[in-house]
Amino acid sequence: MKKALAGMRVLDLTQVLAGPYCTMCLADMGADVIKIEKYPNGDDTRALGPFINEESYVYMMVNRNKRSIRLNLKEEEGKEILYNLVRHADVFIENFRPGVAAKLGIDYDTLAKLNKELIYCSISGYGQTGPYKDKGGYDIMAQGLSGIMSFTGDKGGRPVKTGIALHDIAAGNTAVQSILTAYIHRLTGGSGQYIDLSLVDSGLAWTVWEAASYFGKGEVPTPNGTAHRLATPYQGFKTKDGYILVGAANQKLWMKFCSEVVEKEEWITDSRFCTNDDRIANISILEEEIEKILVNQSSTYWLDLLEKANIPSGPIYSYDQTLNDPHINERDMIIEYDHPKAGKVKTLGFPAKYSKTPGEISRPAPTLGEHTEEVLKELGLNLDYSRLLTKGVI
Amino acid sequence: MKKALAGMRVLDLTQVLAGPYCTMCLADMGADVIKIEKYPNGDDTRALGPFINEESYVYMMVNRNKRSIRLNLKEEEGKEILYNLVRHADVFIENFRPGVAAKLGIDYDTLAKLNKELIYCSISGYGQTGPYKDKGGYDIMAQGLSGIMSFTGDKGGRPVKTGIALHDIAAGNTAVQSILTAYIHRLTGGSGQYIDLSLVDSGLAWTVWEAASYFGKGEVPTPNGTAHRLATPYQGFKTKDGYILVGAANQKLWMKFCSEVVEKEEWITDSRFCTNDDRIANISILEEEIEKILVNQSSTYWLDLLEKANIPSGPIYSYDQTLNDPHINERDMIIEYDHPKAGKVKTLGFPAKYSKTPGEISRPAPTLGEHTEEVLKELGLNLDYSRLLTKGVI
Repeated sequence: MKKALAGMRVLDLTQVLAGPYCTMCLADMGADVIKIEKYPNGDDTRALGPFINEESYVYMMVNRNKRSIRLNLKEEEGKEILYNLVRHADVFIENFRPGVAAKLGIDYDTLAKLNKELIYCSISGYGQTGPYKDKGGYDIMAQGLSGIMSFTGDKGGRPVKTGIALHDIAAGNTAVQSILTAYIHRLTGGSGQYIDLSLVDSGLAWTVWEAASYFGKGEVPTPNGTAHRLATPYQGFKTKDGYILVGAANQKLWMKFCSEVVEKEEWITDSRFCTNDDRIANISILEEEIEKILVNQSSTYWLDLLEKANIPSGPIYSYDQTLNDPHINERDMIIEYDHPKAGKVKTLGFPAKYSKTPGEISRPAPTLGEHTEEVLKELGLNLDYSRLLTKGVI
Repeated sequence: MKKALAGMRVLDLTQVLAGPYCTMCLADMGADVIKIEKYPNGDDTRALGPFINEESYVYMMVNRNKRSIRLNLKEEEGKEILYNLVRHADVFIENFRPGVAAKLGIDYDTLAKLNKELIYCSISGYGQTGPYKDKGGYDIMAQGLSGIMSFTGDKGGRPVKTGIALHDIAAGNTAVQSILTAYIHRLTGGSGQYIDLSLVDSGLAWTVWEAASYFGKGEVPTPNGTAHRLATPYQGFKTKDGYILVGAANQKLWMKFCSEVVEKEEWITDSRFCTNDDRIANISILEEEIEKILVNQSSTYWLDLLEKANIPSGPIYSYDQTLNDPHINERDMIIEYDHPKAGKVKTLGFPAKYSKTPGEISRPAPTLGEHTEEVLKELGLNLDYSRLLTKGVI
């Protein structure tokens, strides 16, 4: 079976997370992603542990299905090799600080002269324009600037960051979408183009509910723990051995929760908890009262009762519980492949399950420069590799 | 200029956030998204405030650029109209609970018989397979199951949810990518197919760093406030009027921070803070000492000093500060359009800036059923609309 993105060639000059996450998504669906790693040590994550037989797990996690060539773009011969690659590529993606690509002679204007069909995507912290464009942009700074950090955390507490690198992932996903969109434009008669996207904008675009409240009534969101602003109980509670989520968001579910779960039928007529408005007005007392009961039994005990009562609910898993859950495993969200140096490598699976073009691991994450010769030979370049190696070009 | 996704017709049977976010991204890039809203009241978010002249801001936020038709799928005539639409569509997307589409007679197997080129995408809480498939899936339950909630929050504190509906957004983004990928597959010789994706899997796929640590060395992540696990100071601090982020992640930046920002040159030789390892070992004391100084001046004061010292830094904005920031505005992340009923409506801009096919607002979010007649006429269906309306079909 032809892979969905077979025939799409991507030159990937990104490193760390946002860009590599994007090109992993493309490679998983069959694009030929050629990772062009900097001289001499390649992607910075190659130096980040944990390591298995000297291979970085962090690197391997987001670089499966790609080929790697090492290229010194500060050497004229290195740049010539890149130009040759560009002539045969569909997509070029980079995450240098704004201005650096131009200094290296690999900016869009230069490369579009070699290949006007090229789709060129730049990822940066703040974008190629605007007053902050020259600032160093990291995920955490983007989480602060987008406001998301200010409404994540305990009620009345300090801002906290989202556990994952939210804006890196946002930029990576936005890059996938925009590259695929621009590719469709080309397949249906359009030409190549330039795409500028930032960590900040990509995450900010996800604050749609908060934007509706702010634009609609000037409401500024604040952190609220695990709780819903408008309904309760709809939040996390401590149990004897962990935390669970209870979603008794309407009156019928609340009544079932009182009678069938916590066995507090008297709460149904308690003036503090009668209606949802009453419960929201007394939410601190309610939380305390509920938790006093829930801490006496295990999460499993309560989740069984909640399920029997048909009340939306679920565990708050620690990450090891997540990865060992039977549902997660039955959904193939953990897969394993053989790496020539690291041996058996576990990795996360493909979130979209396609009936005809499923994601698959066709190649392990590459070692540094593993495919330099292979790729250059495909271009018909008969180069003196040992001389280029000695000279520090590849 | 042709829009990037011109010619792609999408039938959108989703509501609330994940699905509508997906189809908004497609519509922004020029796809003809026909939102098929349920009889009689349409998308549930139409009933959610804030309202402007009775139009829901929440609904308008994620449904711009789409057309709306109202259709009662429980009526045989309603279903026949849908089948007619399916014959002329490229993409079909739904977010019913698993099994409901089949009961309605609009599952993939049925619709593929009418149009074998159809790309059919299902979004659900837990997916179409696995032991939890029949559970009601909401964003918060997915945040709990994926483990992300367990490593978001204050150090040693309770789990908290991410401020945005993280897994809804993850599913929406994964849907965009998989639909575009399947569409490229079709444009390059493949046929239609079925895509099954879930809120849980989509967010879990984003935990790549945490997976690397867990698979590589069995490490289970825990909440850590705004702080980095391996370097300090690289986190948020309280100032006189808010919070800021300081990213002095290496020795050189630490020394500059001591001498040029907080004027504590003695810390450089203080045995508690000498090396990064020392600082991590004494992080609580360090945080306290730094904050004692930073709370005496405003965020702006410190950010100016940090910028002069070339230390990565930035504000932790409240959401109103974000939307009023000059950089955010110069990046066109806030746009405004005229809505026939609501008047001037502000909305978030397009995160990817395309040189040739920029996103644009071509139509306001539709009123319920606004395009029923228009769309059905395009199909060449000459129906008795007033009879269908009276009968409760449209």
